[in-house]
Formats: sequence, structure tokens, C-alpha cells
Amino acid sequence: MRILPAKSFSTKREEDYGTPEQNRVVKEIIERVRTEGDQALFYYTEQHDRVKPDKLRLEEAEIQAAYEQVDEPFLQAIREAAANIRAFHEKQKRNSWMDPQPDGSLLGQVIRPLKRVGLYVPGGKAAYPSSVLMNAIPAMVAGVPEVVMVTPPATAGQPGINPYILVAAAEVGITEIYGVGGAQAVAALAYGTESIPAVDKIVGPGNIYVALAKRYVFGAVDIDSIAGPSEIVVLADSSADPAYVAADLLSQAEHDEMASAVLVTPSAELAEQVRREVSRQLAELPRKAIAQRSLDDYGAILTVDSLEEGIEVVNRLAPEHLELLLEEPFRYLGAIENAGAIFLGEYSSEPVGDYFAGPNHILPTNGTARFSSPLNVDDFLKKSSVIYYSRQALLENGRKIITLAQHEGLQGHARAIEVRLEKELEKEENRDGGN
Amino acid sequence: MRILPAKSFSTKREEDYGTPEQNRVVKEIIERVRTEGDQALFYYTEQHDRVKPDKLRLEEAEIQAAYEQVDEPFLQAIREAAANIRAFHEKQKRNSWMDPQPDGSLLGQVIRPLKRVGLYVPGGKAAYPSSVLMNAIPAMVAGVPEVVMVTPPATAGQPGINPYILVAAAEVGITEIYGVGGAQAVAALAYGTESIPAVDKIVGPGNIYVALAKRYVFGAVDIDSIAGPSEIVVLADSSADPAYVAADLLSQAEHDEMASAVLVTPSAELAEQVRREVSRQLAELPRKAIAQRSLDDYGAILTVDSLEEGIEVVNRLAPEHLELLLEEPFRYLGAIENAGAIFLGEYSSEPVGDYFAGPNHILPTNGTARFSSPLNVDDFLKKSSVIYYSRQALLENGRKIITLAQHEGLQGHARAIEVRLEKELEKEENRDGGN
Repeated sequence: MRILPAKSFSTKREEDYGTPEQNRVVKEIIERVRTEGDQALFYYTEQHDRVKPDKLRLEEAEIQAAYEQVDEPFLQAIREAAANIRAFHEKQKRNSWMDPQPDGSLLGQVIRPLKRVGLYVPGGKAAYPSSVLMNAIPAMVAGVPEVVMVTPPATAGQPGINPYILVAAAEVGITEIYGVGGAQAVAALAYGTESIPAVDKIVGPGNIYVALAKRYVFGAVDIDSIAGPSEIVVLADSSADPAYVAADLLSQAEHDEMASAVLVTPSAELAEQVRREVSRQLAELPRKAIAQRSLDDYGAILTVDSLEEGIEVVNRLAPEHLELLLEEPFRYLGAIENAGAIFLGEYSSEPVGDYFAGPNHILPTNGTARFSSPLNVDDFLKKSSVIYYSRQALLENGRKIITLAQHEGLQGHARAIEVRLEKELEKEENRDGGN
Repeated sequence: MRILPAKSFSTKREEDYGTPEQNRVVKEIIERVRTEGDQALFYYTEQHDRVKPDKLRLEEAEIQAAYEQVDEPFLQAIREAAANIRAFHEKQKRNSWMDPQPDGSLLGQVIRPLKRVGLYVPGGKAAYPSSVLMNAIPAMVAGVPEVVMVTPPATAGQPGINPYILVAAAEVGITEIYGVGGAQAVAALAYGTESIPAVDKIVGPGNIYVALAKRYVFGAVDIDSIAGPSEIVVLADSSADPAYVAADLLSQAEHDEMASAVLVTPSAELAEQVRREVSRQLAELPRKAIAQRSLDDYGAILTVDSLEEGIEVVNRLAPEHLELLLEEPFRYLGAIENAGAIFLGEYSSEPVGDYFAGPNHILPTNGTARFSSPLNVDDFLKKSSVIYYSRQALLENGRKIITLAQHEGLQGHARAIEVRLEKELEKEENRDGGN
């Protein structure tokens, strides 16, 4: 790893909007699924996944059969992880509220879950059971009544869905699973087909075709943010164990050649120790080639003059994952403005959050922690404003509303209030006349 | 207005992604501002607004001078409106939280305001002081320390910014205002120039060039949703006053030729009365031509067999504004699944919410109330997960985390935990050895 001064180092990468050819292909797939429905899904599944299913939805028995293919330690670990994730996300729930006014009006906000959410799960090597948990549980906790899953019907050319994925889905309560992947699956979720009713929101990672398809259907349905390559920044002082720092940097670097792992430290000694420790640990890593490439292109050890400068660098980079391997990590928590997830102290290694502790591992990447948040229960809720205006409120405020409408040249708005004020006046006159 | 059965009527409109030429122009403007900064802003301002300013930022004195050009009733009304909007949005605020665990771990969520937000305000006829309030106040209530405004330096060819806009901005506490509009203003906010520091999020309405520019810079900064034409659905029974229904429908129809105003009712009599009343009131409306066109193209009176069917139609249309002009409106509130804002009862005319009551008037359009919400304080907050894992927690759960990482083929993740477990074991052995 390179040791650099922190000044102008950036982890920012240009977003991938696909090639014109990729965009054309995705558009064609989506239009065809939109017009031809299931028929197009079968066509593309045969083309892309080289399997010829006779139906799209998995039978309950197929899902249950997956349990026989997974080992007991995995099952126990994923059950406990799911319980932790559920407990954490329960804390994010919110109530609808009403705010009664002195004039008898009622204002408020109704908060409801979305009705139907589709979770995309990639096939092949990027099929992570932990991602099924992290995407589905916040939706379930929000109260979404229909959470459905789509995933390619074949893994690396072999027919059959990864059993670990199916078990993860079953464990969180997903029973509606379709064996269809790629842009065609996204199109089906967005517009609906004979077999797959349309959803309100699509979440989950995928390759460039899936990402482009999500971008394309956004508006017809909601989508989650398009995840960029993974990132970690470790802010460490001389109290940090170089072996821990190196292992944590490598745990991100092994994800992807585009992943970014950065150490920020005021300790020149730690910088040098970590550099050596990374080389040593890297040699033992099965995904060595990927990690090496990631460290060469997007990794760095950044030296700073002080922890305060280190905090500034962190806030500028706005990392997806931030570890504070500091003697007093909580002392600096309040100064962290931009980070997806913040891990404090020597036992809070980043994989603790990836798999088990409870917070979500779907986090803002590529500097978007400046304005984005980890996937959470709010992402599956929607709000409606509620306005009940009393007679007294309209009589007291009607003229002010008319004034504002007229200043914007919207006479029709003013008339909607005037017609009521006139009628109320009339009623009063009639009452007075009756006396 | 046409009276139709409700079955297949839709208010859904294709989204406007601009012409290829509009897209090309916007891309060129953005790239030029990104590379040339202020110089490009001055160039495009002269080209598009036909004025030649010597600086971009308004002086405090220029903002204060606007107060001399607005009348007292306006000033009083907007002050009271701002107080109401502030009070409503205060109810949306949330606290960061911590959740201590039995094993000594701490999990939590830090919630912080964005640091800098840019508000786009159109020039010309679409310059609405109420929109300044509705966009800026939620950001202010969230605690955003820097809320800045950009707006074209000329209105309808005349140099000078609408004084009502400037007063609205000053009233909500905006002091940083730049006289620059169009795609160039969006580019400046997204990437920063010598005069205008970059923001984290851009909100506010604009023409097609502004909308395309916002779409283009999304990712570098956050944006609000692109607002479609305005919509109202009135669900009314025979208790409703046809004059109120008609006036409320017209208050939306006058916005824009693409606006949509729809009555849904089980009462054939009300349907006919409203049809006649709309014709009568339309004749008196200054924006008659616009409203007529909107009603012809996107308006309808939909008859249904029952209020229950009416509710179904409403949920399918997912309107921006929904009025329940019913004898017992609260009885049906719980059944409304999809609507941006819900107005209950005869005094809750839609302009009450547009201007004054407190809830936001920036609402999801074009069916997106299925998954989107009114602009609110959350839109200006971001969350970071916090994970402090105790030694005990890691010792108890480390093996499970390793199991999950190994099942995903991520040995580096497993190693980050193993290196810690090994070290802890070593420490214990050393302690035992010392005894």
C-alpha cells in the first residue's frame, strides 16, 4: 500500500452509466417485458440463463428442500443474525401522529408501509444470504405485507438457485419467489406480468444490466440507491493494533477490484507497520489478486498531522464504513459528519456489522454519505399529510389565504376560499334574518 | 367536464425526459460550468436572462430593499404561514438514539442535518413565495446550517428578482442568495464555482432545463423528486356542496394545462350539479383558458357504485391532493392508502394546505404517492449507524460471524475476526502462564 499525505486523495469514482449498447439492450428488454409479459420472461431466461423453466414461481416444497442442503452452523448463525437485525430495525419504527389545534382543526401525518416490495438477488458469486436479510428485514419491520424475491434460476450455468439464498429468504418470511433475473426481472417487478404482479419499490444489488434497468423504471416504481464499490476508512492512532487495521482493510479490499480501503493516521509508525502487515496478510488471502488490485488502485495509507485533521479527511471522504481504532473512540463520534456506518474500538471489526450485530450493511457509497443513509425502515414507509380545518379556522384565516393566492396570480385558489366565506356569511345572515 | 364510469380512467402521464436537443444543451451547460466556473455562469446569464450582472451574490441591502415593494397584508400573511409551517414540521424532528446491549455493546443511529442545501426558485410567472417557505422551512427545522437560494436575475425580460420571493426568503432566514438561474445554477450548486460553494442537496421546482439538470447532477448531490403537473381528486358524497367541489377542482385546473382535477362520487345528482357548476365558475376565472384545457385533457367526473369503490379508485389514482367531501370524512381516513395530502371536510379546501395550515405543499405527483411522501424534515437529515462491540460480544459471536463470512466465500472478512479471537486467546494464555 502507498503511504501518502492526505491532502488531495480522493476515493470518488465516476458513476457507471453503462455503454450505449448496454443501455439499448436494457431498454429493449424492458419494453418487451412490458408488452409481452411472461412470454418475454421465458424468452430472456432461456437466452441468458440457459435454462428452460416451465413456470416462474417456486413451489413451497422447492424452498423447503433447500434446508436439506445447508449446514446447521450456517442455519443457527443466520437465525441469530436475523433476530439481531430485526431488533435493531424495530427501533426505527415510527407512529402516525395528529396535532390538534386550539381552533379545533386537526393536522397530522399518516405513516404507512408500502404495499408490495420486490427484492432482487443476483445469482452466481455475488449471491449473499446476508444481503437477503439486510434488504428484506427493514421492509418486514416496516410492515410491508408483500415482500417478494426475484433471482436468476441458474448459478454459473448450473440450473438451480443457491440454497443458502432460499433458506435466508424463508427465514425472513419471504414465500413469493420467482426464478427470473436480469433486466427482465426488474421490468416484471416494475410493470407486472401475468405471473408477477407489479411492486411499489425494487431493492437489492445487481450487475450493470440490473442497475440500468432499475434506473430506467424509476418513477413507475421507487428504487433504492445504486450501490457503488465498497469502501472502508480506518482512522487509527498509535494505540491501534496494526494486525487488526490490516485485516480490516483487506476485508474490504477483497470484495472487488474497485473497492477502496484507506487508513488515515497521525502515527508514522503505525502507517509503516500497517503497510508491512498488509503485505504479510495479503499473501495468505484466497482472494489475493482482487485485494491487491483494489489496494493498488483505490487503497492508501494517508498520514495526517493530528486526529483533528484526520477527522476532516474522513468527513471529506464520507466513507461507507468508518472504523475509529482510537484510544478514546467515543470522544470523536460527535465530530463525524459523514459516514454510512461508524465502528468504534478494537472489537468492532467491520464484518461484525456486515453480518451480525444488527445495523444494516446496505450503506451509502462513493461520498453519498454526505446526504444518504443506511437502508432503513423509513425506506419502506410513506407519509400522507392530514388536514382537517375547522369552520373557525377558515373564518379566521380565510382572508390571509386569499391574499397569498392573489399575490401568486392564482385567482381560482382564492375563489375556492371565497365561495366558502360567502356561503358562511349567507348562513349567518339567514340565521339573523330568522331572529 | 366529462362524466365517466371510474373503471379504467387514469391520471398517469408519461414522464418528461426532454428532447435530445434539450438534453444536449443541459449537458453542455453543466460541463462548461463545471470546468469554467463563474465565467460560464456570467456567460449563460447574459445569454438566457439578457442581463449583465457584475456579481452573482445579492447584497444584504438588496434583499432588505425588497421589503419596500411588498404590501403589509402579504407580509403579515406570509409571516403567519411561515410560523404554521414551522410548527408542523417541528413535529417531524427525530433524535439520534443508542441501544445498549446486555453484553456491553452499544448500537445506535446518529441523525444529523445535511450541511448545505440549495433551493432553486424559478423566475417569471412560476415564482411562488409560498414555495420558498415550503422548501426552506423543513431544511431549517432539520437544522441545516447553510440554506442558500438561486433564482434568475431577471423576470420576464426585466432585470430584478421578484421582491415577494426575496421577502419570503428573508423571512425564513435565507441570507445567501445568488442571481443565477437555469441549468447553470443547478450545475453551480452541484459542483461549486469561485462564488458559489457546492451544496449537498438541491431542491425546488423549475422548467424542463432545470429538471434535466437536476437529474444529471444526481449522485454528485442529492435532489428532491421531479414534480409532475399538479393533481386533485375529490371524493364526495351527496352531502357535498357542488359549488365547493367545483371551486376546488378549478383551483387545481388553473395551475397548468397538464394539471388534473377529478371528482369521484357515488351520487349521480352531485356529478351533474358539479358539471354545471364547473362551467359556471370557469367562465369567471382569469386563467380560464388554462383551466379549460386541463379539464378537457386530464379532468373527469367519475361515477362509482359506492364509497367503497370510490376509495378503491382513489387508491389506484394515488393523487397528490385528495379531498374527502363526505358526511363522515374521518370514517374513511384509515382506508386511504395512497395520497400526498388528505383534506377532510368542507372547510379544508385544498388552498388551505397550499398556503397556510402548516403541512407541506410539495407532494408526490403522478401516482408516486404509492411510494413517496410530502417534502419533510427527513429529507434534510441523514443517518449513520453506530456499532460499538464489546470484548464479550466478539468472544461470544465471533465464530458465528466467521461461519457466515466463509459461506459467502469472503475469507478476508473471516480473518478480520479470527485475528482478534487469536489475539484474545493469546492474551488469556499469557495471563494463565503468569500465574
